Amino acid sequence: MPRYRLLLEYDGTRYSGWQMQQNARTVQGMLINAARDAFGKVGEVMGSGRTDAGVHALGQVVHIDLPESLPSNRIRIGLNDNLPADINILNAFPVPKNFHARHDAIGRSYLYQISRRRTAFGKNLVWWIRDDLDVGGMRRASAIAAGMHDYRAFADNDPSEKSTMVLVESVEVGESGDLILIRIRASHFLRKMVRRVVGCIVEIGRGNLPLDAFAASLENPDRSMTMTAPPSGLFLEQVRYKGESYRTELCPAVIAG
Amino acid sequence: MPRYRLLLEYDGTRYSGWQMQQNARTVQGMLINAARDAFGKVGEVMGSGRTDAGVHALGQVVHIDLPESLPSNRIRIGLNDNLPADINILNAFPVPKNFHARHDAIGRSYLYQISRRRTAFGKNLVWWIRDDLDVGGMRRASAIAAGMHDYRAFADNDPSEKSTMVLVESVEVGESGDLILIRIRASHFLRKMVRRVVGCIVEIGRGNLPLDAFAASLENPDRSMTMTAPPSGLFLEQVRYKGESYRTELCPAVIAG
Repeated sequence: MPRYRLLLEYDGTRYSGWQMQQNARTVQGMLINAARDAFGKVGEVMGSGRTDAGVHALGQVVHIDLPESLPSNRIRIGLNDNLPADINILNAFPVPKNFHARHDAIGRSYLYQISRRRTAFGKNLVWWIRDDLDVGGMRRASAIAAGMHDYRAFADNDPSEKSTMVLVESVEVGESGDLILIRIRASHFLRKMVRRVVGCIVEIGRGNLPLDAFAASLENPDRSMTMTAPPSGLFLEQVRYKGESYRTELCPAVIAG
Repeated sequence: MPRYRLLLEYDGTRYSGWQMQQNARTVQGMLINAARDAFGKVGEVMGSGRTDAGVHALGQVVHIDLPESLPSNRIRIGLNDNLPADINILNAFPVPKNFHARHDAIGRSYLYQISRRRTAFGKNLVWWIRDDLDVGGMRRASAIAAGMHDYRAFADNDPSEKSTMVLVESVEVGESGDLILIRIRASHFLRKMVRRVVGCIVEIGRGNLPLDAFAASLENPDRSMTMTAPPSGLFLEQVRYKGESYRTELCPAVIAG
């Protein structure tokens, strides 16, 4: 079966995450159903990684095996016509049979949106924080988080994970109107890691957690850090493969700041 | 009872418009209930104007009479704590008893969002148009629409309306990423007028309606123009009172372009 690479965005609010499960509404499950409806049958459908329930994607990458060779536009439109409005295929193109959306990914970029105010439009797309936040302190925390660290204190236990050492390429903190944006990039992430790092950065911004306690948890991974940011503010922004680069501008995911 | 002026935003998707109705979920109805829940009782609650079912607001202005004098922040928070997430009070301040949100308004600004692509996040906040649109032609149409014209051809019949002459202050067409934005400003609007003018401008953009037919309908108001843009893309952007000015930048209402 010919293999295609899909780029898709989704609003994760109504889904139990990416990964197919029995008796749960998932993005992967909807995509498989849409492919069957559009093209009769479908082979392997593999995402670059899982996203948790309520987490969104601006640029999830998926490989999918379809029963026949089709023009890219027909694949995109055929799938979209069979998908609900909150899942959208942005583009599709043919890839070699050995392209693997998960194994070949060399970097992932996650964007987190915090809103400083209540918003009528973005409840499911931000974390609304009423407390004053010290953005300077959050920037200092982000500088500490970057680099090679043992992130075990920030991860749910995952027996399939061989090591908890992660090279975090960058952590950026930006502002846009009433939004505070946090972007974290690494080759891979541990389970719940992004939301726990954001949770800690916010606690530092609130003045509840000293910077050196945060730094110490990266030195001593037994000091578990369990403040977890809600899924609503989190977006899988971009997945990077060999020869590709990340976008540079740090701007709001979907709602104007 | 002391009178307050409220500025509010709402996502109109789940509402049968602004105006209170029996057996229908309306924004005014929710606001009255929230005020009763927060402050025990409520007097007059009057908006600057109605918005139709599914139409949104970034800056609806309302006057509300409350049983006692309260700090502005307490009014805002008291109402928001009793409102659903898709209605949000942005601010509240005391005004003289004779301030009237509808009669004193001297200008209204409406913003319309067209998306050139399917979007996982904005289905209820844009009009998605698949056809190619000639933005140059849409700009020329907007220049024709500005000025003093008889807009009867673009209005639902409304016996309470004395005249169908409207001075349209400006019509702007802008682009932001995949969005096309149309902003229309006038002292007042006839029923359905904004959505019908947008509907015509889009038909011109599609190449289905010649510019001179559009111009002719403004000269000869018996040539009814009934292409109506869907409510999803429409936002009451701003209401202007004496001594106040409009914002100038034309930017997306809520979703990034």
